[in-house]
Amino acid sequence: QHLQARRTVTLVPGDGIGPEISVAVQEIFAAAKVPIEWEIANVTPIIKDGQSVIPEDAYLSINKNKVALKGPLETPVGKGHRSLNLTLRKTFDLFANVRPSRSIVGYKTAFDNVDCVLIRENTEGEYSGIEHEVVPGVMQSIKLITREASERVIRYAFEYAKSTGRPEVTVVHKANIMRASDGLFLDTAREIAKEYPDVGFRDELLDRVCLRIVTDPTLFSRTVMVMPNLYGDIVSDLCAGLIGGLGLTPSGNIGLKASIFESVHGTAPDIAGKDKANPTALLLSAVMMLRHMELDTYAGRIESAVLKTIAEDRARTGDLGGKAGTKKFTEEVIKTLEEL
Amino acid sequence: QHLQARRTVTLVPGDGIGPEISVAVQEIFAAAKVPIEWEIANVTPIIKDGQSVIPEDAYLSINKNKVALKGPLETPVGKGHRSLNLTLRKTFDLFANVRPSRSIVGYKTAFDNVDCVLIRENTEGEYSGIEHEVVPGVMQSIKLITREASERVIRYAFEYAKSTGRPEVTVVHKANIMRASDGLFLDTAREIAKEYPDVGFRDELLDRVCLRIVTDPTLFSRTVMVMPNLYGDIVSDLCAGLIGGLGLTPSGNIGLKASIFESVHGTAPDIAGKDKANPTALLLSAVMMLRHMELDTYAGRIESAVLKTIAEDRARTGDLGGKAGTKKFTEEVIKTLEEL
Ligand SMILES: CC(C)[C@H](C(=O)O)[C@@H](O)C(=O)O
Ligand SMILES: CC(C)[C@H](C(=O)O)[C@@H](O)C(=O)O
Repeated sequence: QHLQARRTVTLVPGDGIGPEISVAVQEIFAAAKVPIEWEIANVTPIIKDGQSVIPEDAYLSINKNKVALKGPLETPVGKGHRSLNLTLRKTFDLFANVRPSRSIVGYKTAFDNVDCVLIRENTEGEYSGIEHEVVPGVMQSIKLITREASERVIRYAFEYAKSTGRPEVTVVHKANIMRASDGLFLDTAREIAKEYPDVGFRDELLDRVCLRIVTDPTLFSRTVMVMPNLYGDIVSDLCAGLIGGLGLTPSGNIGLKASIFESVHGTAPDIAGKDKANPTALLLSAVMMLRHMELDTYAGRIESAVLKTIAEDRARTGDLGGKAGTKKFTEEVIKTLEEL
Repeated sequence: QHLQARRTVTLVPGDGIGPEISVAVQEIFAAAKVPIEWEIANVTPIIKDGQSVIPEDAYLSINKNKVALKGPLETPVGKGHRSLNLTLRKTFDLFANVRPSRSIVGYKTAFDNVDCVLIRENTEGEYSGIEHEVVPGVMQSIKLITREASERVIRYAFEYAKSTGRPEVTVVHKANIMRASDGLFLDTAREIAKEYPDVGFRDELLDRVCLRIVTDPTLFSRTVMVMPNLYGDIVSDLCAGLIGGLGLTPSGNIGLKASIFESVHGTAPDIAGKDKANPTALLLSAVMMLRHMELDTYAGRIESAVLKTIAEDRARTGDLGGKAGTKKFTEEVIKTLEEL
């Protein structure tokens, strides 16, 4: 393994608690001897022609390395500005947003054994940005669904199901209401399903999914859900809630030009710089990134160490009811790593 | 009380299990001596110029009586047809959909003490029906938000909060993404909030609501949520899931010309006609209807009897893990009524 070529990965520490949790990842990766080099890129909002854009060097770094890990980013202040998280997804055409939510052993919520995986279309839908005022007091927002974007995200979901051994894909929609747009998404899914005779396929209405998933999340343990952009935003947060929140759930934005793995929680300015933040979501996102880079052995070890540290209550941060700081938690994960 | 004028109410039994659960309501209302007469109207889908329309006599009955109770309706078969439930909402301009979800004592779910109330905009938004194909493989659905429709539903939410003693209204939106449409809904809410200095007001992103509500539903016990159409569809089903499903949650569609109270579960064709259906959702919808008609004493008695029958496990239908049929359950509610 010492012969493995070291690869460079862009690290966007982000705002608020971002830098602290990024340090945690860097230290744990160093202890695990992960063969990657970090290239730090700060993404502070730059406003150009009234649009928030990504700084050139961050753009170039991600474009060159093709893999990035990022902490939370603040949305530029002022009414006209969109979230930089979205700008990144758009800029690099990160078409599939992968969001797993798995129960963290030792952290009790209302549900045990949650194991949900959701793939969100990440480039269009309700996030098209096409809106207009028809007359004063009458606004229209356009939901845009294309066969092309639907196809690639749905195909990604089937490939994901195959490679992770989940026997089924569920397309989530409201084609009973938005017959044209969600109808196209559903029809596309039906066609692509034919290419995967070994993977099961079903479709379910969004409202029904939300009802059933809070009745018994294990109903979704064997499937990979795939859905348009906004539905993915909603259901992924719902799933995160089932296991305890966004501080515990990883995410990956997959594209052909680049892939960005990110913790989707906020910048938590109230606790920033106070050694209180929980780096788990960023760590688990980094683990997803390692699997994406086919560094599975490192991914498995780090994941085990993080989960064991929480499960055995070796060090828990405040959000999990513990007293440990970010640094203490990091130290314990490293100790646990060494025992594995 | 025997002097009270009897009012006529339209009863749309509906399809599948609709007739059985409607009989349950009629028998319980008779036993409780509720001073209303039922006018039965069947709503079987009629296809006219390719559109599903409501039969004339049902239309006339609801239009005259201004209050209706309805069971589940089947959606006409064939791709082009919209749900008759929606046709009714549109036809009578039923602008506010009221959906409370309260824990049923004695029926255990993952959460106790759920007490959520949600008001859904019921006429426009993502349900506008305006869609088109731009070029093959590119579909657009238009979300339509008007100040007028937003105003009336938001004002209804504030009035509802006031009259039910809930201290706050929460507007739920994605104005960070749909800045024009959800932005208008949010801005309208901010303006109307000023007219209600005694009612608190806050806004929260839809994804965040879904996350927090499954973390701890009691975070929403003191507020009245109000939101655009599709969000209401999603969050109301989610809330129903928290307490055990659509078989237990009532709903009311409020308009100026008429109001229709309905159980929002399906027609359950698999158990239809088998004396297995749970009439609770329709009964609780009927209770909402009685409150709307200012027949609060009757409403309170029937509600108590229904909840007591379930809480004391006097008779539970199969969906609640019991063995009682619809008739047995109805008899027990009537017995319980007599003991109150
Ligand atoms: C930050 C925000 C714009 C974003 C979204 O709405 O997609 C977030 O909620 C997410 O899920 O990544
Ligand atoms: C039947 C269906 C069209 C309807 C909707 O989507 O609004 C239902 O889910 C509801 O919530 O009443």
